[in-house]
Formats: sequence, structure tokens, C-alpha cells
Amino acid sequence: MASENQENVKGLKSAWSWAKGYFEKIVNVVICAAKDAKKLGEEDPRRVIHSFKVGLAITLVSLFYYFDFLYEGFGVAAMWAVITVVVVFEFSVGATFGKGMNRGIATLLGGALGVAAHRLASFTGENAESIILGLSVFWISALATFLRFFPKLKARYDYGLLIFILTFSLISVSGYRDDEVLEMAHKRLSTVLIGGSAAVLICIFICPIWAGEDLHNLTATNIEKLAVFLEGFGREYFETNKGNKASLDGYKSVLKVKGNEEVLVNSAKWEPGHGRFRYRHPWGQYLKVGRSIRECAYKIDALNGYLNSEMQTPMEIRSKVQESCTKMSSECSCALRELAKGLKTMTRAMSAEPHIRNAKTAAKNLKSSLQTSLWPDTDLLDIIPAAAVASLIVDIVSCTIKIADSVHELACLSKFKNPAAVIANQTGQGRVAVASDIKGSLNLNVVVE
Amino acid sequence: MASENQENVKGLKSAWSWAKGYFEKIVNVVICAAKDAKKLGEEDPRRVIHSFKVGLAITLVSLFYYFDFLYEGFGVAAMWAVITVVVVFEFSVGATFGKGMNRGIATLLGGALGVAAHRLASFTGENAESIILGLSVFWISALATFLRFFPKLKARYDYGLLIFILTFSLISVSGYRDDEVLEMAHKRLSTVLIGGSAAVLICIFICPIWAGEDLHNLTATNIEKLAVFLEGFGREYFETNKGNKASLDGYKSVLKVKGNEEVLVNSAKWEPGHGRFRYRHPWGQYLKVGRSIRECAYKIDALNGYLNSEMQTPMEIRSKVQESCTKMSSECSCALRELAKGLKTMTRAMSAEPHIRNAKTAAKNLKSSLQTSLWPDTDLLDIIPAAAVASLIVDIVSCTIKIADSVHELACLSKFKNPAAVIANQTGQGRVAVASDIKGSLNLNVVVE
Repeated sequence: MASENQENVKGLKSAWSWAKGYFEKIVNVVICAAKDAKKLGEEDPRRVIHSFKVGLAITLVSLFYYFDFLYEGFGVAAMWAVITVVVVFEFSVGATFGKGMNRGIATLLGGALGVAAHRLASFTGENAESIILGLSVFWISALATFLRFFPKLKARYDYGLLIFILTFSLISVSGYRDDEVLEMAHKRLSTVLIGGSAAVLICIFICPIWAGEDLHNLTATNIEKLAVFLEGFGREYFETNKGNKASLDGYKSVLKVKGNEEVLVNSAKWEPGHGRFRYRHPWGQYLKVGRSIRECAYKIDALNGYLNSEMQTPMEIRSKVQESCTKMSSECSCALRELAKGLKTMTRAMSAEPHIRNAKTAAKNLKSSLQTSLWPDTDLLDIIPAAAVASLIVDIVSCTIKIADSVHELACLSKFKNPAAVIANQTGQGRVAVASDIKGSLNLNVVVE
Repeated sequence: MASENQENVKGLKSAWSWAKGYFEKIVNVVICAAKDAKKLGEEDPRRVIHSFKVGLAITLVSLFYYFDFLYEGFGVAAMWAVITVVVVFEFSVGATFGKGMNRGIATLLGGALGVAAHRLASFTGENAESIILGLSVFWISALATFLRFFPKLKARYDYGLLIFILTFSLISVSGYRDDEVLEMAHKRLSTVLIGGSAAVLICIFICPIWAGEDLHNLTATNIEKLAVFLEGFGREYFETNKGNKASLDGYKSVLKVKGNEEVLVNSAKWEPGHGRFRYRHPWGQYLKVGRSIRECAYKIDALNGYLNSEMQTPMEIRSKVQESCTKMSSECSCALRELAKGLKTMTRAMSAEPHIRNAKTAAKNLKSSLQTSLWPDTDLLDIIPAAAVASLIVDIVSCTIKIADSVHELACLSKFKNPAAVIANQTGQGRVAVASDIKGSLNLNVVVE
């Protein structure tokens, strides 16, 4: 009896510890999730705002159900307004607008074609009607599905094609049962339009999140990240008392943004003019700027590899290239900072030009310091890493010029303010000659390789 | 009168030429679109098959409307089956299955919660009911929208969360008007399940397109593309009679596939066992293999830059590194080919090991040929490009080893056949020693830098 009691106690204890462990696990998971949520919210507080905006939009549209005078007009079709809000509401205004337009136009076209198919089919007998309807649904949905593979259509109208198939099938097929097909199509279209406009309006008027603005800031920040690396590089590579290397790793995020950038460009193209950006701002050019930034970031990544490599060139060899390398890297850094500043303030970054010219001069000086006569009795294997670093920095000068070119092109396309012109007007001195010289230097390539 | 006639004729002529020009433009656009369509279809004939499959699925599900005995059960709710097919049917089985599961489970959960909210609210008075329902819709949709920002949830359950919000709002809000809320939720769930299973069944049983198989083949093809470049590189760089450089540009497509790969992995994770792949094949490992392939492709891209550079090292300098470079590049090419072959046949690529070992030996030989004493009276500027090429090829050897390591890991995880073990069993000689030596060499890094 005592042993049985003991067994019971033991069993209870193990059950208790099991339950306790399980409970602790759940609590842990919840705590982790809460921490993640806090981090997500702190990283970008607009996420929290966006969530509340979605909740608000859905609640507002569901008012159709609560008020009799609203409900009477649409009846059950009011659910399409709710569905549209849920499906169309995206993070940025551009994405929401794009999806809304896609859904609206596709519903219009699909509905019209569905009504037409139903009318055509209803002239025949009942058996033939179902066959004609079935065949038209088959062919039109197959065709529209194939259209979704066209890259250009996929980029901007993928969702519209989907909704086109959906509406066409629903309207033409339901028409077989319900003769009020025109009214059905009309109700569906108007509820979709109501839902879509509710989503777009709330998206624009309550703390709007513009994809274009995000894209613009992302580009400027990325250029700045490269500048931060190049600023610190000389100190890290050529001086023995090393600082904190990890502080230079900021550029790494630049290598990952490609897909994000394309999504932002596609969204931004839908956006109306806002803030400093007019409608039809040259968003496509940002992809080109992004490509040149990434090219530079890959070179910087290679450079970072030498920074962290265990096999180092002796200091006395490094010091031979130190002056020109440090010069190039710091001048590139300054030029990039000026470009980023110009982007942020939307002015032409004329002040980047002198830095680029200095970097080019330093590259030419490097050439003369690389004559063998200056390196007697040195093991080639010791020289190679230093030479590779120097050659990478020369490449980075070319990359910086490419970035400057593409930013310059962007400035021309979107008509940034021209500080030089302002000054020329103020002082009355023609600065055209200087400006054309600068333009010429932009298109020049570095000849040292 | 005559001049009026002439004017009329002139007007008619210009109208005619305008109409003709316009018509020709339209014809041109149609011809271009038809050519694009033909190209898309020839590139991957499965696109055409997929389009017909979608048409078939939608037509089949719309049968609900045509046959009375089917229509009676569901009535207007049958449209949810059509909607589900249109929205869920994706190119690959995995993506379709994932979306179908997401939609099914989210409809179940959202519907259950919606019914519960409606029941709870109906205990109160009518005014309080609408307020409670509105508040619950607001909070739950805001919460679920915020959950969509969690990266892990976004990757696999984004669509499910959307459908959850949708179903919950629809069921709880419609319940305010229609007391048959349980029946409504039940009908919606069963039609969604019917539509989802129709999509999945047609996707699996008519010419299935497996995301996993695509991913596997893509990986093997990418490795082969790198091998093709390295095979041709020695010939192109060290011999004066140059062949067709463009034939070496195949590797460039490897640099672009990253986003595509992640989509394929996420889809493949949903797929049941198929063909040579069991359920829970280690799909995640393909991302690691892909990363190492891309790393190698970037080095190859840099190498390609030197191939096309106008500033070339004199041939007599290049010839000093020719032997070891050609050796390294061709051995890496052979190793990569063996790895690709192993992947394709799903056997462990033991035969890649000797090639990697040869490449390492060549890398060590290169080290001794880079002593300054062998290069008297040479301009360092002439040596640097050749040295950079040599150093890049050494990097490519390390990259090849990384690819071999990750493929090897994949082979272990997915239990590829082991040809060495088969031979050992056949000949009766233990080959364990060799195998362990190979494994050791895989984890060794090249020491030449």
C-alpha cells in the first residue's frame, strides 16, 4: 500500500514536471514571439501603423452590413467590398494603388466579357448553352493564364490577369443559373470599386507609406554605407593599432536588396505625385543606380576579404602604396557622401567632382609607385596581396565614377536643383565651362588598370 | 468645284494612310506578341500545358453550376470552389499544394473563430452586438496583418494569414445579417476544400511540374555552366588564336537565379515524395549549394573581366603561370562536371576528389613559380594582371572545394547511392581508408593565397 502510494506520488510528480516543462516551453515560445514582435515594431514603427490601418479599413467597409440603408443596395454582394479591402491593402501606397487598379479594371473587363459570353450563349438552346459557356471559360482562362508568363505583363498586371479569369468565370457561369447577370456584374463591379477606393483612400490619407520615398532613401543610405567603409578602410589596413573592424560591415546589407528594389520600383510607378516627387518621376533609373552601387559593394566585399585575411603583406611593403591608396579611398568616400547628400536634398552633387578628380590623380600616382625598380629584393608573393588591394581600390574609383554617372543621369531626368547654376546667377560669372569640364570627366574612364 | 474634289480626295487619302499606318502598327504589335508567345512556349513547353490545365480545372469545377444535383447542395456558395481553383492553381505542384493547404486551414480557423465571435456577440443586445463584432474584426485583422511581417511566417504562411483575415471578417460580419452562420461557414469550408483538392489533383495527375525536380536540375545545370567556362578559359587566355568568347558567357545566368531558388525551395518543401525524391528531401541544403555556386560565379565573372580587358599582360609573362593556371582551371572544370553528373544521377561524386587534389597540387606549384627570382627585369605593372588572374584561379579552387563540400553534405543528408561502397563490396577490398582520406581533403582549405 505504501509502495503504491509512493508510485502514485512518483507518477503525479513526473506528470507535474512534464506539464511544467511543457508549460515553460509554451511560455518561452510566447516570450520569444513577443520579443520578435517588439523588435519588428521598433525596426519600423510603420508596420504597427499599417496593421491598424488594415483593421480600420476592414471595419469601416463592414459597416455595410450594420446599417440597413447601406445594406439594402448591395445585399450579400457587400462581401466583395470586404474581400477587396483585405486583398488589396498593401504596405505602400503604390502597391495598394496598383493592386486596386488591377482589380478594378480586371473586374470591369472580365465582367463585360462574361456578360457578353452569357448573352451569346443564351441565343442557343439550353444544352448548347452550357457547352458554349464551358468552352469559352476553358479557352479564355487558358489564354489569360498563358499571358501571365509574359515577363512585362507579369511585372505589372499579374494580379489583374488573375482577377480577370476569376470574374469572367464567375459571371459567365453564374449567369447560367441566374438571369440577372447584368445586375450581378454591376453589383460586383461597384462593390469592388467601393472596397478598392476605401483601401486606397485610407492608405493615402492616414500616415501614408510611399514606396517611391522608401526607394529614394534606400538608395541614398546605400551610397552612404559604401562611403562609411571606404572612410575607415585606410585606417584599418595601413595602421597597426586596429580599431573595431565590425563597424565597417554595414555595406553588407547593400548586397542583399536587389529583389526588394525591383518591388519598390514597380510599386512606385503606380504612385501619384507626392512630397518632393512628381508623378512619372524616373523610378526606373533607380534600378541603374542600384546596379552600380551593388557593383561597387562587390569590390568592397573583396577588399574586406583582404582586410580580414590572415596572410598579410609586411607593413614596409604596404607603406609604399599607402599614400595613394588612402588618398583614393578617402576621396571616393567623400565623393560618395556628397552624392548621397545630393540625393537626399535633391540637388545636383557638383561638389563630388573635385573628389573624383583627386581620386583619379591618386590612381595615376599609384602607377608610378608600382615600378619594380622601387621594390628591389622583395618576394613577389609578398607584393601580390598589396598589389591586389591597390588594384581593387582603382576598380572602386571606376565604380564610384559609374555611381556618380548614374546619379547624375537621375538628377538630369528628375530635374534636380542645380546649385552651380544658382551661384552663377548670383555672382554673374558664367560657370558653363566648369560644368562642361565636370561632365567630360564623368564620362572619362580611369586609365590605370 | 474641281479644287473641292481634289481636297476631298486629298482628305480621303490622308485618312486612308493614317488608318493604314494605324492598322499596320496593330498588326506589328500582334505579330510581335505572337513571336514572344512562341518563344515562351518553346523555351518551356510546360507553360502551355499549365495554361490548359488551369482551363480544365476551372471548367471542371464550374460543372457545379451546370448539373442540378450538384448545384442543389451548395447553391451560390459553389462560386467559392471556382474562386479557389483560380487563385490556388500555381505552376508547380508544391506551390499549388502550399497555397491550397494555406487556404484550407486558414478557412477552417477563420471560420471557426468567426462563428465563435458571432455566438459570443449574439448573447448581448443588438447594438452591443455590432460594436463587439466591429471591435473583434478590427483587433483580429490588425493582429494578423502584423503577424505577416514575421519573416518566417511570411515565407510559408503569408497567404494563409490573408485568407484567415478574409474568412474571419466575412463570417463574423455576415452573421450579423444571416443567422445561418454555421451553415455558411460550413458551406464555405467545403467548397474551398473541393476547389482546392480539384486544383491539387489536376496539378499532380496531369503532367505534374515538381518544384523540387526543377530545383535539383537547376542546381546541376548551374554547376555545369561553371565547368563550361573553366574548361574554355585556359584556351582563351593563354593562346593567341582566340575562339568564340561569347560561348563562355553561359555562367552569367547563374548570377541571377537567387530569388527564383528561394521560391523553388519554399514550394518544394510542400511537395510529397515524387520520382527520385522522398518526402522531406533536404531542400534547404540546395540554398547552401546555390550560395557556394554563386560565390564561384562571381570569381568567374571577375576572371571574365580580365579575359575581355584591353590591357593584356605580354604573352611571355603569362606563359610563366600558364601551366599551373591551365591545370587548375581544367581540373576544377572536371571536378565540377563530376559533381553535376553525381547530382543528376544522385550518386556520391567520389570521382571529383582526384581532380580537386590535382588542382591543389597545381596551386602549390604556382606558388613556387611566383618567386621574384624567376621574373628578372620585368615591369611590375605587367605582372600584376597575370598575378591577379592566377590569384583568382586559386580562389576558384577554394570555391570549387566549397561547392564539393556542400554537394557532399547534400549527398549525405539525402542518402545518395555510394559508388565506392558498391565497388568495395564487389571487389572485396576495403576502401574505407580512401574514403576517409577524401573526406579529410574536403574539409582542408587551400593554403596558397
